[in-house]
Amino acid sequence: MATGQQYNVAVVGATGAVGAKMLETLDKKNFPINELLLLSSKRSAGKEMDFQGKSYTVQEATPESFEGVDIALFSAGGSVSKKLAPEAVKRGAVAVDNTSAFRMDPEVPLVVPEVNEEDIQKHNGIIANPNCSTIQMVAALKPVQDQFGMSRVIVSTYQAVSGAGNEAVEELHSQSKAFLEGEELKPELLPVSGEKHHYPIAFNALPQIDVFQENGYTFEEIKMINETKKIMHDESIQVAATCVRLPLFTSHAESVYVEVDKDGVTVDQFKEAIRNADGIVLEDDPANQVYPTPLEAAGKCDVFVGRIRKDLDNEKGFHLWVVSDNLLKGAAWNSVQIAESLAKNNWLNK
Amino acid sequence: MATGQQYNVAVVGATGAVGAKMLETLDKKNFPINELLLLSSKRSAGKEMDFQGKSYTVQEATPESFEGVDIALFSAGGSVSKKLAPEAVKRGAVAVDNTSAFRMDPEVPLVVPEVNEEDIQKHNGIIANPNCSTIQMVAALKPVQDQFGMSRVIVSTYQAVSGAGNEAVEELHSQSKAFLEGEELKPELLPVSGEKHHYPIAFNALPQIDVFQENGYTFEEIKMINETKKIMHDESIQVAATCVRLPLFTSHAESVYVEVDKDGVTVDQFKEAIRNADGIVLEDDPANQVYPTPLEAAGKCDVFVGRIRKDLDNEKGFHLWVVSDNLLKGAAWNSVQIAESLAKNNWLNK
Repeated sequence: MATGQQYNVAVVGATGAVGAKMLETLDKKNFPINELLLLSSKRSAGKEMDFQGKSYTVQEATPESFEGVDIALFSAGGSVSKKLAPEAVKRGAVAVDNTSAFRMDPEVPLVVPEVNEEDIQKHNGIIANPNCSTIQMVAALKPVQDQFGMSRVIVSTYQAVSGAGNEAVEELHSQSKAFLEGEELKPELLPVSGEKHHYPIAFNALPQIDVFQENGYTFEEIKMINETKKIMHDESIQVAATCVRLPLFTSHAESVYVEVDKDGVTVDQFKEAIRNADGIVLEDDPANQVYPTPLEAAGKCDVFVGRIRKDLDNEKGFHLWVVSDNLLKGAAWNSVQIAESLAKNNWLNK
Repeated sequence: MATGQQYNVAVVGATGAVGAKMLETLDKKNFPINELLLLSSKRSAGKEMDFQGKSYTVQEATPESFEGVDIALFSAGGSVSKKLAPEAVKRGAVAVDNTSAFRMDPEVPLVVPEVNEEDIQKHNGIIANPNCSTIQMVAALKPVQDQFGMSRVIVSTYQAVSGAGNEAVEELHSQSKAFLEGEELKPELLPVSGEKHHYPIAFNALPQIDVFQENGYTFEEIKMINETKKIMHDESIQVAATCVRLPLFTSHAESVYVEVDKDGVTVDQFKEAIRNADGIVLEDDPANQVYPTPLEAAGKCDVFVGRIRKDLDNEKGFHLWVVSDNLLKGAAWNSVQIAESLAKNNWLNK
């Protein structure tokens, strides 16, 4: 980031769980900001937020908000993105969208910079940030695809409540307290805000993230399946997912089974590929009980991988355990990485 | 249980997490007990425990304790079983052992009554109760094996702390409280008592249950792999497991992928097979958000199955979500079922 140029940046959804992390990451990575604009719904407008020692008043996001903006980071829900991202583009901004609104649009690149950074330059104004659980998995699988080929992935997730927003974090907190004090639990939000039925999340496991599709899969599972194929540029990869919400505040974990194409790959070769990959930290030493955990990954930008082992019955099968902060690499940091790449490569104006 | 005969029953490890559930289950199922003997280590001996309105003093387990005992239910750790189960057998008792001490011994039947009850009669005095995470999985997979054939299983587990004993339950409780009050966490027990390194379990996920083997698998994973093949009488089934300890007090959940042999099996046929199986409750209605959860399964003897769906890329692949109380069907209830079968079928004396 040494081009010397500075950018007008808008954060849409600044008061949300991911919005706060976007500000934290823009600061931490010292993104070259000229003017910063914090936008939100009408309800949250007026709130004051600090950034690099300066106070900002959050403003209601309208089409006109984007006049003069270079990069708009969206994380305020799919309907907001659908309405306002095209308005931002119309006014000359590039929108990096953290919702599912445009992810499967063939005209919109879906990007994890460690995997397919070059797709960014194909943008028509909008670049989509993948789903949190997809990002950490494809980041870990990229070196596997590159070095050994990859035909099949079966993943079961262990996902934190912060992926469902600040209110879900609050629900886990207050419900856990009530549970420990022997009080009655009154679930009101999880597994999915707006759904008819709510289950307790405290000391529980809910096999539903997002709404169900007609085929019995949840939308979260369908996102992992479709996004993985798009990001990795390979429709032939067989991907199966089971997504589970757990009483974790931060970081998703994933139990991933992958089948490689190449014959005779050893565990050491597999580990070496992971160790050398961008954005990945290998934490894998069973003899010393070294493996990643959600609590230890929280607050960090990397994707952590451990428990790598060969399937005992399938020569081409490997198992791994992938952990990352769902609000950082899974959302804010990946968006800021895309913004960095836009700036660094001069891909803003095409 | 209407033979009219009554039995002298010993519970070894009566003061432990599973021991308490054994007493609860013997009572609930009205097992025909003549004399009840509560045994424990020297440390816990002397404690008073109630059973069906009568108070019992827990006694130290010694070889002589088993004089006159018909059925001894062991759940006091592998070393106690190794030492005392043969002593019980020598004195004419049949030992139902809930530890891993004898499970893979070719002379010892390993039994989940819904799956292989007939193996009980081959006993030479000892019958092994499988690992908790194995029991609920094979119970759910038995109708699949019977009706469609089964070549492959890949499972990722979501396991409760009560599987690691009362002290682990206490650790999750006190650590969760400390976490919510912003206090420092001082893990002392989990993931494995006696190991060098301890990780916090509160609001975390630990990909280690039991100790690591040289091949990078944990012993819990190896147990699931080997026990499944033995119970289902098929060494050719490919089984892969990843076992994860979570901040749940009671009930294990499992994300299971299975490949059937038969062509053209539909989701409806698969569900029907599960629905009609002994000991299984199908809870599977995505449109109404019906699926099993650990909190709802706690305190019940059944195995609950939901989220059944076909793999989108593999015609013979199915995914399911299996939940059961790890201390009941996963331990105490399965042991008492074996005792019931011994009594009902007159398989005590051979």
